Amino acid sequence: MQSPQTPAPRFPIAHPFDDDKLREECGIFGVIGVQDAASFVALGLHALQHRGQEAGGIVTHDPVQGFNSARRFGYVRDNFTSTTVMETLPGPLGIGHVRYSTAGSKGQTQIRDVQPFFGEFAMGGAAIAHNGNITNANALRRELIERGSIFQSSSDSECIIHLMARSLQRNIPERMEDALRRVEGAFSVVAMTRTKLIGVRDPLGVRPLVLGRIGDGWVLSSETCALDIIGAEFIREIEPGEMVVITAESGVQSHFPFRPQPSKFCIFEHVYFSRPDSILGGRSVYETREAIGRELAKESPVEADLVCPVPDSGTPAAIGFSLESGIPYAMGIIRNQYMGRTFIEPTEQIRNMGVRLKLNVNRALIRGKRVILVDDSVVRGTTSRKIKDMILDAGAKEVHFRIASPPTAWPCFYGVDTPEREKLLAATMTEDEMREHLGVDSLKFISLDGLYRAVGESKGRDKACPQYCDACFSGEYPVTPSDMIDKGFALKAAE
Amino acid sequence: MQSPQTPAPRFPIAHPFDDDKLREECGIFGVIGVQDAASFVALGLHALQHRGQEAGGIVTHDPVQGFNSARRFGYVRDNFTSTTVMETLPGPLGIGHVRYSTAGSKGQTQIRDVQPFFGEFAMGGAAIAHNGNITNANALRRELIERGSIFQSSSDSECIIHLMARSLQRNIPERMEDALRRVEGAFSVVAMTRTKLIGVRDPLGVRPLVLGRIGDGWVLSSETCALDIIGAEFIREIEPGEMVVITAESGVQSHFPFRPQPSKFCIFEHVYFSRPDSILGGRSVYETREAIGRELAKESPVEADLVCPVPDSGTPAAIGFSLESGIPYAMGIIRNQYMGRTFIEPTEQIRNMGVRLKLNVNRALIRGKRVILVDDSVVRGTTSRKIKDMILDAGAKEVHFRIASPPTAWPCFYGVDTPEREKLLAATMTEDEMREHLGVDSLKFISLDGLYRAVGESKGRDKACPQYCDACFSGEYPVTPSDMIDKGFALKAAE
Amino acid sequence: MQSPQTPAPRFPIAHPFDDDKLREECGIFGVIGVQDAASFVALGLHALQHRGQEAGGIVTHDPVQGFNSARRFGYVRDNFTSTTVMETLPGPLGIGHVRYSTAGSKGQTQIRDVQPFFGEFAMGGAAIAHNGNITNANALRRELIERGSIFQSSSDSECIIHLMARSLQRNIPERMEDALRRVEGAFSVVAMTRTKLIGVRDPLGVRPLVLGRIGDGWVLSSETCALDIIGAEFIREIEPGEMVVITAESGVQSHFPFRPQPSKFCIFEHVYFSRPDSILGGRSVYETREAIGRELAKESPVEADLVCPVPDSGTPAAIGFSLESGIPYAMGIIRNQYMGRTFIEPTEQIRNMGVRLKLNVNRALIRGKRVILVDDSVVRGTTSRKIKDMILDAGAKEVHFRIASPPTAWPCFYGVDTPEREKLLAATMTEDEMREHLGVDSLKFISLDGLYRAVGESKGRDKACPQYCDACFSGEYPVTPSDMIDKGFALKAAE
Amino acid sequence: MQSPQTPAPRFPIAHPFDDDKLREECGIFGVIGVQDAASFVALGLHALQHRGQEAGGIVTHDPVQGFNSARRFGYVRDNFTSTTVMETLPGPLGIGHVRYSTAGSKGQTQIRDVQPFFGEFAMGGAAIAHNGNITNANALRRELIERGSIFQSSSDSECIIHLMARSLQRNIPERMEDALRRVEGAFSVVAMTRTKLIGVRDPLGVRPLVLGRIGDGWVLSSETCALDIIGAEFIREIEPGEMVVITAESGVQSHFPFRPQPSKFCIFEHVYFSRPDSILGGRSVYETREAIGRELAKESPVEADLVCPVPDSGTPAAIGFSLESGIPYAMGIIRNQYMGRTFIEPTEQIRNMGVRLKLNVNRALIRGKRVILVDDSVVRGTTSRKIKDMILDAGAKEVHFRIASPPTAWPCFYGVDTPEREKLLAATMTEDEMREHLGVDSLKFISLDGLYRAVGESKGRDKACPQYCDACFSGEYPVTPSDMIDKGFALKAAE
Repeated sequence: MQSPQTPAPRFPIAHPFDDDKLREECGIFGVIGVQDAASFVALGLHALQHRGQEAGGIVTHDPVQGFNSARRFGYVRDNFTSTTVMETLPGPLGIGHVRYSTAGSKGQTQIRDVQPFFGEFAMGGAAIAHNGNITNANALRRELIERGSIFQSSSDSECIIHLMARSLQRNIPERMEDALRRVEGAFSVVAMTRTKLIGVRDPLGVRPLVLGRIGDGWVLSSETCALDIIGAEFIREIEPGEMVVITAESGVQSHFPFRPQPSKFCIFEHVYFSRPDSILGGRSVYETREAIGRELAKESPVEADLVCPVPDSGTPAAIGFSLESGIPYAMGIIRNQYMGRTFIEPTEQIRNMGVRLKLNVNRALIRGKRVILVDDSVVRGTTSRKIKDMILDAGAKEVHFRIASPPTAWPCFYGVDTPEREKLLAATMTEDEMREHLGVDSLKFISLDGLYRAVGESKGRDKACPQYCDACFSGEYPVTPSDMIDKGFALKAAE
Repeated sequence: MQSPQTPAPRFPIAHPFDDDKLREECGIFGVIGVQDAASFVALGLHALQHRGQEAGGIVTHDPVQGFNSARRFGYVRDNFTSTTVMETLPGPLGIGHVRYSTAGSKGQTQIRDVQPFFGEFAMGGAAIAHNGNITNANALRRELIERGSIFQSSSDSECIIHLMARSLQRNIPERMEDALRRVEGAFSVVAMTRTKLIGVRDPLGVRPLVLGRIGDGWVLSSETCALDIIGAEFIREIEPGEMVVITAESGVQSHFPFRPQPSKFCIFEHVYFSRPDSILGGRSVYETREAIGRELAKESPVEADLVCPVPDSGTPAAIGFSLESGIPYAMGIIRNQYMGRTFIEPTEQIRNMGVRLKLNVNRALIRGKRVILVDDSVVRGTTSRKIKDMILDAGAKEVHFRIASPPTAWPCFYGVDTPEREKLLAATMTEDEMREHLGVDSLKFISLDGLYRAVGESKGRDKACPQYCDACFSGEYPVTPSDMIDKGFALKAAE
Repeated sequence: MQSPQTPAPRFPIAHPFDDDKLREECGIFGVIGVQDAASFVALGLHALQHRGQEAGGIVTHDPVQGFNSARRFGYVRDNFTSTTVMETLPGPLGIGHVRYSTAGSKGQTQIRDVQPFFGEFAMGGAAIAHNGNITNANALRRELIERGSIFQSSSDSECIIHLMARSLQRNIPERMEDALRRVEGAFSVVAMTRTKLIGVRDPLGVRPLVLGRIGDGWVLSSETCALDIIGAEFIREIEPGEMVVITAESGVQSHFPFRPQPSKFCIFEHVYFSRPDSILGGRSVYETREAIGRELAKESPVEADLVCPVPDSGTPAAIGFSLESGIPYAMGIIRNQYMGRTFIEPTEQIRNMGVRLKLNVNRALIRGKRVILVDDSVVRGTTSRKIKDMILDAGAKEVHFRIASPPTAWPCFYGVDTPEREKLLAATMTEDEMREHLGVDSLKFISLDGLYRAVGESKGRDKACPQYCDACFSGEYPVTPSDMIDKGFALKAAE
Repeated sequence: MQSPQTPAPRFPIAHPFDDDKLREECGIFGVIGVQDAASFVALGLHALQHRGQEAGGIVTHDPVQGFNSARRFGYVRDNFTSTTVMETLPGPLGIGHVRYSTAGSKGQTQIRDVQPFFGEFAMGGAAIAHNGNITNANALRRELIERGSIFQSSSDSECIIHLMARSLQRNIPERMEDALRRVEGAFSVVAMTRTKLIGVRDPLGVRPLVLGRIGDGWVLSSETCALDIIGAEFIREIEPGEMVVITAESGVQSHFPFRPQPSKFCIFEHVYFSRPDSILGGRSVYETREAIGRELAKESPVEADLVCPVPDSGTPAAIGFSLESGIPYAMGIIRNQYMGRTFIEPTEQIRNMGVRLKLNVNRALIRGKRVILVDDSVVRGTTSRKIKDMILDAGAKEVHFRIASPPTAWPCFYGVDTPEREKLLAATMTEDEMREHLGVDSLKFISLDGLYRAVGESKGRDKACPQYCDACFSGEYPVTPSDMIDKGFALKAAE
C-alpha cells in the first residue's frame, strides 16, 4: 500500500546531461555557538549544493523562540537567503540538509520528505539530518508501525527519529546511540537538541563528515569546501564510528558507541562526488583527480593532438593526462553556463536538442584533430555517444575516450542514486563491446589498482580487505543490502 | 518549548468586518461509491466554505494508486478544481476538510496542521477529519509523547490518530471507537480506510453531521447545503453518539459506542454558523432565522420607518422582523461583493477605511429616517459602533439595534473561535451599558427563551436540562473544558 | 492582419452565471489635491469594481518623481493595496480605470490594452482613461496609421491619445477637445496632465460621470458610491457635453466644447449597471429599482405565496414587488458568497455543476409553494432556465418570472458587452415563445413606458425624442454605429 | 520629465562578481523557412544568453494567426521552452532578442522596453530587434515627439520603428533603409515583415551578425555558437553596411544602403563578449584568446609555480600563457556552479560573503606557491582585490596578475554597459599605481599592439586608421557620441 502524496512542484530531476551520472544524494551541515546560525547553514549548504539540488531544509533553535524550520524545493540560493525567510530562523544553533532524492520515495518527492526531521520527546525536541542510506529501513519501518508509530514521510531516515522516541534512555544523545545501533547501512548524521550539536559517522565511515572551528563556535559539514565559504578553519575529519557531542560551553566530546570495523570510505567521493576544492585525506580532491589523469596516461597512452575534458567533471583528470603525456590541453567542448536546470515541459523540438542545449563543440579547434576525451565515468553511456557524435560531426579525425574511474558495474546502496544494474553499460558489456557501442577509436578505463594508487595507496588495492568501499566497481558490498535482497537483488557470486 | 514552524503564506485571517464575529472552525465532507470522489468532495467543501476559509484538504483512495492527498491554504475554488490537481486524487472514496484555525496553533497555521490527517497502521492506512474541539487534548498529547509518539502537527485532532495507532483492537473502526472513548469535548468526525467511509458524532451531538445518498453511493457532510450542490438526497442526521461505517457493498451500519447522554446541539448553528439553505431539525435555517426576527419584533417592538439588515448574516432575521412588525424592509446598507478577503499589507490610508471597504450606506434612502438595524450577534461590539456611525453620518434620525441572539458572554470551547472572555462586550457590560457604549437609541437582544421558542421549543429553555448547548450565552458548559481550567479559566460560579 | 499578442494570465472571463448578463465595460476615477492620490484612486476603483473585473490600472504624477503607473490583471483589492505597489505611485494627482474588455480585442486581453493610456507630447505627458465605446474607431485607426502613428494596443481608446499627439493646439486640454471632436460614440473620460485633472462626457451623456469634493481636493468618478468610500462629498453630475479642467489652485473650470444635443443617458444604468447605493438623478438606484418592482407588480400581478429575487441583482425589484403586491418577500435562492470567480481549468464533473456552484435553492422553504422569481433582465435565457429547473426540482408548485427590464432585443455599441443580436433571446422570440422556451407558468417583462415611469418620467417614454438611450430595448441608436455598419450590422427598419 | 513606470520584478542585475565586468547589452537572432520558428529562436537565444540575461523576447508570424509575441524577464530556458508558451508563437518566421539593459532606462527596466519592437504600418506590420546603441537617440526622439509620435518605451531602439512609420517609402525594407540612414551609432539589426527576414549591420560593422543555413531556411545570429545549437551551417558574416533581405522563396538579397566606411569591429568581442566556441574572422574565439595568453607570456614573463585562470573568462588565455611559458596550468580557483544569479534581498551576513559565494580557492593546491593569475580585464578592480586576498589568505607565496586586455580607460557608447569614466581604475591610475592598489607582486596588461597581433594583425595596430574599434582602450571613438557630449562627456584631447 502506498502513502498519501502531495504532488511536489515539478522540479526537473536532472540536467539533460547529468542524468547519465551517479548522483550523491545528500549534503549535511551544522553549526553551534555563532550569531545567526541560519545564515551560516545556508552558506554551507550553498557550498554543498553539488551533493543535492532537489530540495533543502534548515532547523534552528533559539532560547526564546524555540525550534524553527524551513524546508523548500529548489536551490539554496533561491530559498535561504532573503531576510524574510532567514528572520524566521533565529538562534545560535542550526543544522541543514540538501537532498537529491531518498531511497524511500518512489515517484515525486514530497515536502515532508525533506530533511531535517524533527521530533518532540518527553525531555525536549531534537532535529536530525542524514547523508547515506539505511539498508534495513523496510524492516525497521514495519516493526515501528506495528508498535504504533505514525510515519509522516516516506523517507527511511525518519526511522531514526522514531527509534529515538521509543528508546528507554534518558537523554537525547544516548537515545541517538540507541537508535543508530539498530540501523544498518551508511550514515553520516548531524543532529541538534536545544543546546547540543551532534555528529555521527557509521562504523565504516562510508560518507564523509568533517569538523571545523569558527570563532568560538563549531561546524560540522560533509566537505571542507563548506568550511571555506564561511571562513571556518578545518580541524579534522570525524572518524568512522565516532559520535561527537558539541556544546557552546564545553566544546567537542567524542564517543565511539559502535563495534570497531575497518574503514570503508567511498572511493567515488574522490572520483566525482566531492568538490575539487575540498580536502580528503590531507590532499585536495583536485590534485587526486589530476593524479588519476596522470595514472590513466601511464596506463593507457595514445598518440593525439589534443586532450579535452568533458566539462566540467572531467577537467582535472584531463589536465593531469595532458601534464603526464605532454599532449596539449584544450577546451574542445564548451559548456553553456546558463543551462542550470533542464527545460520544464519542453516542446518536441527543444527536447530533441538533448546535449546540445548544454554543450557545444569548439568546431574550428577540433576540425582535423585527433582528440583524447577525458570523462570521469561511464554510467549508461548515453551521453558519451552523443558527445562522440558531436566531436566527429565537427570534423575530428580520431576520438579516444579515457575514463577516470573503472567500469561502473554495480549499483550503490549507500546513499548514491544509481540506475538498476541492467542499465549500467559495464554490467552487460566488456570493455571492447563498450568501445564498439560508443563508436570511438579507443576506450580505456583506469584500473582499480591504478585508482587506488592515485588516491595514495601506493601498493594498490588490498584484495583481502579493500581500503575503500568500491562496491560500484567490484560488487563487493561491505554492508549487506538486506532490504534490496528481500526485493530480489542478487549479490555477486563468490569466486 | 515550541515546535518548529514553517511560516505559512500570509493569508489574511478574516474580513475587516467579520473579525467581530464568532467563527466556526471546520467543515467536513466524505463520499463513497462514486466515480471520481475528489470532485464531489471539492464541491461539498466549496458549499461548506463558510465554516472555514483558511485552508482545505482532501484525501482519496484508489484500489490501484492507494491513498493520495492534497492540502492547501486558501479557498476550495482556487485549489481543488483544476484538472491538474484533481487528477492526483483518483478513486471512488474520499474525505475532505475546510478549516479556520485549530485550538493548537498559537500563531500561524502550518500546512501540516491542515486536515485530514493520515496514519499508516499495521492493518492499513486511515485518514480522519474532525470538526469540533478536544477539551482534554493537552493531557492526551503529553501522555502520547511519553509513550514515544512523534507528533507532526500542533493540531489537537492528531491525538486521535496516535490513539488509534496504539489501540489493541484489530480493525480500524474498532480502533477509532477505542480512541474516541479517550477523547473529551465536541467532535463530528469523517474518516476513511481503503474500503470504508466512517462518520461519528460525539455523545452530546454538539456539532452537526448529516447522511446523504447519491446514486449508489453515500455522503457524509456537516450540512445539507453540501448535499444539494452535488445533487445528493438528504437521508437523515447522524445521531448524537452514533458511529456509521459505510461500505460500497453493504451500505450503512450504525453503532452507538458511547454511554448515552442528553443531546446538546450547538444553538449558535441556528443563529449564525450554518448556511440559511441548510436544513436543521426538519426546517430550513433561513426559516428559523426569520422566526427569530419575528420573535424579536414581538419581544422588543419599536416605532420606525425602515427595517434594515446588517448584511449578509442579519438578513433573514430582518425580513422576519419586518413581516411581524409591518415596518418596510429595505437594504439600507450595501455590501461590496468584491471584498472577499481583507487587504494584504495595506497602506495606512486603506487600513483606516475599515468597514467602509466592505459596506456602504444607502445614503439617499436612509436620510431622515428612523432605522431598525438587525444583526445576528454582538461580539466585541467594534463593528456595531462603526455601522452606527455610518448610518448617523448618512443622516438617519434614529438608530435602533435588534440582535438575533442573546448577549454573548462566554467563550466557546467546542470548536468555535471566540475572543477571550474579557473581550466579549456582554461579559463586562449590562445591556444598558452596551447601548450607551454603542451610542444608539435602543439596543435589544432576543431573550434566551425567545431563541429557544424560535428554534421550535415552544416552552422555551428547560433550565434543568437545556435542550441545546448554549454555553456562550449561559456559561453552562455541558463538557468540562479541562485543558482550559488547567490554564486558569474560571467557570461560572454556581448560583 | 492581426497584431502581436502576449498571452495574458488566464483570467476567467465571467461568473458561470453572470455570463448571461450584460456587462458594463469600465469604471473610471480621478482625484487631485490630496496626499497620496493613489490610495484614493485604489479605493474608488474598488468601489467601482462591479463595472469591470478583468483588470485595472492607475497613473499618478508627483512633482519630483514624475508620472508613474501600474497595470494589472485581476481585482483592485489584490493588486492595488499593498504598500509595496502603492509606494511606486506617489503624488497628489492620479487617475484609474477598471475594465471588462474593450471592443478592440477579439480574444485575450493584453496588459498593454489596460488603461489608463499615457502619451508624451512636446509640452509634457498626459494620461487618459475612458468608459464607453468609440463607434468610428476603425476608421480613425486606419487614418492614424497612414499618417505614421504606431499603436501599442488593440484598444480603440488609444485613438484619442494619437489624435492628441497630432493636434495643432498648444496645450493639452485644447488638444483633448480637438481629439474628442473627431470621436463618435459614447465616452466619459478622466485624464490628467502634470497639474490638471480633466473630465469629459460625450454630448449625449450616455455614460455617467460625477464630481466630488474631498478636503481641498476634487474627485471625478463613474458613480457616487466611489465618493462614499473615500468620504468625499457628492457635488454634482458632469453634464452631457461638458469638459471640466481642475487644478489644485483654481478649482473646477467648465467648458462645453461640443455642439449641444438632447441628453441620452443609458437607462440600463438604472436597471443593472450602477450600484444600488449610487445616486442617479437625485435618487438612490436602489429606490429606482424598488420602484421598477412596484411598477411590475402593478402591470403584471399574479397570485402566489412568495416573492423571491434572483440574487443579487434582482433583490431591490423583488422587494418592491412584494411591497406593492403584499406577497411575502423571501430568500428562496441562496448565493454562495465564496464563488468570486468561475473555476479555472475545471474537471468535467465540476464544469457540469454550472449554476449550482453559485446558487442553491432553499428547498425546505420552496417546497409546495407558488413562487414569483424577480430578475433584472433576460439576455440569452440560459441561466433563467437552469434556475427554473432548480426551483421546480425543489418542489415548487408554480414558477412565475417577472423581469425588471423590457426584452433585450438589440446589442449595445456604447460601452456594454452584449452578445451578437442572434443570441439575444428577445431578438428571435415573442414573449410567449420565451415563456414556453423557459418552461415557466408565466413570464412578464416591465413595459418600456413602465420603466420610464419608474425612473421618474411620469408620462412615460417620449416616442419622438426618448429621454434616455434605450437602444438595447428599442433598437433606436442615438449615434450611428458606423464601424459596425461597415461590418454588416443591420439597423432596425424604419416603421 | 519622466515616463510612467511599471515596476519590473526585481531581477538581480548581475552576479556579485561579474558586476566588475563590461557587459554586452544584447544578442539577436532570426530564422525564416522552418517549421515552428519560435523553438529555433528560443534555442538560438539560449546560446546567446551570455550577451544579455535580464530579459528576452520573441516575435513570430504565421499566415493564419498573424504576428504573435512574448516578452519576459529572466532566462530563455525559464521562459521560452514550455509547450504552453511556445504554442502561442506559431509560424515559419521569427526573430528574438536577449538584453542586458538599454541606454534609455535609468532605473528599472520595464517589460515594454524588452525587444523586439513591433509596429503596424499601412502596408502591414514589422518587428525589429537591435544590438548596439544609437548615439543620436535623444535628438531623434525629441524630433519624433514634436511630430506627434507616441513612444511606448524608454528604449532608444524604438526610434527606428517610428522613423519607419513616418518614412515616405512604399515598402518595409525601403522604409528601414530610410530610417537607419538617420541613425548614428552602432547597430546590428534583425527585423521581419510577414514574409521577409531582414538583417543589417551599421557601416562600421561594430557589432557582429552572421548568416546561416538550416535545411531550406535561413538564420541570422549575433554569433556562430547559436547556429551550432540548432544544427545550422555557418555561411558568412554580414558585412559592415550590408542589408540582407531574405524570403523563403528567393533566398538572400544583399544591399549596401550606406556610404562605405572603413570597418571598425569591436575588438572586445574577441577578448570577452563572444563565446569561446564562436567563430570570428575564420578562427575560434577560444584560439584567439589562447593566442592572447601566449602573447602576454611573451610580453610579460615571470617565474612561478602555477598559472591559474580567474574562472571562467580567464581560462583560455591562462591555457595559452601556460603553453607558451611552460609553467603548469592548474585550477587554483573553483567556481560554484550553482551561483547563477546573485542573492535577492540577502541577509547582512550573506551579503558580506561577497565573492566567496561564487569562488573558492583550492587551498591545498595553492599553499606555498608562486601563482600567476590570468584574467580577461580589469574594470573597477574591486573583484581583483578580493581574489588576491583569497589567494594570499590560502597561503600563496607570490601573486602575479596578467590581464588579457589593455587597461580599460574609456567608456563604450556602442552597446556595452561600462561604468562612468571616473570609476574605471585605468582612467585614474597608472599601471604601477594599479599594481599597488591591488596589492599584488606584479601586474601586467597586454599591450594594444600585442592584442592586435593576437587577433591576427601581424603588424599590430594601424595608428592612422585602426583596424578595430578600440575606443575603450584608446579613447578614439569612430562615431562621435553626440548625445553624451550634449550631456557633458569630454572626448580625449587631441595629442
